[in-house]
Amino acid sequence: MESTARSPARICRGCWDQMHVPIPIRGPLALPFRAFGITRSKMNPNICTICERSFRYVKKQQHISAAATILFADIRGFTHLSERMDPLILSEIVSAFQDRCAQAVWDHDGIVNKQMGDGLMAIFNFPIKIRHHVDAAIAAALDIQRSCTSALRSLDLHADGLALDALGVGIGVHTGQVEIGEFSTFRSDFTAIGSAVNLAARLESQAAAGEILVSAEAAAQAPNLMAGTQTRTYRLKGIEQPVVAQVLFKG
Amino acid sequence: MESTARSPARICRGCWDQMHVPIPIRGPLALPFRAFGITRSKMNPNICTICERSFRYVKKQQHISAAATILFADIRGFTHLSERMDPLILSEIVSAFQDRCAQAVWDHDGIVNKQMGDGLMAIFNFPIKIRHHVDAAIAAALDIQRSCTSALRSLDLHADGLALDALGVGIGVHTGQVEIGEFSTFRSDFTAIGSAVNLAARLESQAAAGEILVSAEAAAQAPNLMAGTQTRTYRLKGIEQPVVAQVLFKG
Repeated sequence: MESTARSPARICRGCWDQMHVPIPIRGPLALPFRAFGITRSKMNPNICTICERSFRYVKKQQHISAAATILFADIRGFTHLSERMDPLILSEIVSAFQDRCAQAVWDHDGIVNKQMGDGLMAIFNFPIKIRHHVDAAIAAALDIQRSCTSALRSLDLHADGLALDALGVGIGVHTGQVEIGEFSTFRSDFTAIGSAVNLAARLESQAAAGEILVSAEAAAQAPNLMAGTQTRTYRLKGIEQPVVAQVLFKG
Repeated sequence: MESTARSPARICRGCWDQMHVPIPIRGPLALPFRAFGITRSKMNPNICTICERSFRYVKKQQHISAAATILFADIRGFTHLSERMDPLILSEIVSAFQDRCAQAVWDHDGIVNKQMGDGLMAIFNFPIKIRHHVDAAIAAALDIQRSCTSALRSLDLHADGLALDALGVGIGVHTGQVEIGEFSTFRSDFTAIGSAVNLAARLESQAAAGEILVSAEAAAQAPNLMAGTQTRTYRLKGIEQPVVAQVLFKG
């Protein structure tokens, strides 16, 4: 496994990996850049806002095709909870979830590309290059399950008469070629699209609380992490062939 | 109906409506602000990056409860298409969709709060106040259906042997109290959470290509727009009571 508990980067790891250009993001050399609005990205604090918002400058194209691993995670039963729960507690749960997930993704050099309420999408292998990006994504998924389980249990939810068991995280992981770039003329932050992204999202939607569903393609690239996992076959909306996935974590 | 084809605002309409502070966003007075990184927001070009990223400064709290109308839209059958279609054409479709949707939302003073691949979430009544925010959201939904239908038809997709009828947009609209604010310690852009948001998302997931599903609560507040619509009842995942919705547009 690569890159857990790495020390904070002094230059942007995305700009370095993509262009071999050193952009200071920490320390005194970062100050003049900050004055021009170049700061650490919200997607990952080891990359900068150039990678985040200037994809066309970084890659000299509007989008590229790249191998990447995609992770989707969300809180299971959130709709049910949101109908019954005090909005303040709900927002505490969402914050705890988003912060823990981000830390886990960053610890393995991924980026939090999208946050949507009680869910998120992470990309591994862009802009920071990761040799074993499937391993990195699965390691992040395991960290998410561990840290969210403890965080959610530590919240005092009994006051609302809700079963704690109802709360948990579902995760889907898939790897493949995706299109990365800007897909809107008015937004400048990049994202990834393509069938591999959609499959990861669909797997996540099938994952029960505490489960990580890893596609067969991803599992084949991370055999060390797959010992003793259970295999399941899904028929997913919009996908003709049955999809085989491994269930990695049952919290 | 309010605010179609309004001229571009010279001061940020969000900062004005929320704080009565005039922040120039166009014209010569905007220049010094731009030097400090205060520019037009990507969520809506009539608001500024202060509204977008400094919620706590604008509202003096981490989040607020507010009445708002939420619109979700996405491309129906996108997973199916993404399995068969050239990634370049796929990205053209996504760009055309996102740009048309944004224009429709902005024309009615809403904001594009989230974009996720082939989908988006829009908020009406924050930060720009809209007296009839349900009307505004439904008018935007109608515009989205009209402009996306023509845009998608104009793309030359026959080359891939795909039926054009497969392409269309599904939309869900609901109104209610939502929590608006920052729900992550590392992201600074605000969003909305709560059961009303989830219900809008669930309605969208039920909408077929060309349909706008409007919740009964939203429909009751926009009777003028609801003439001749069809009523349907749904059982939605995570929601105990059956949900009644009106089908507004069948393209």
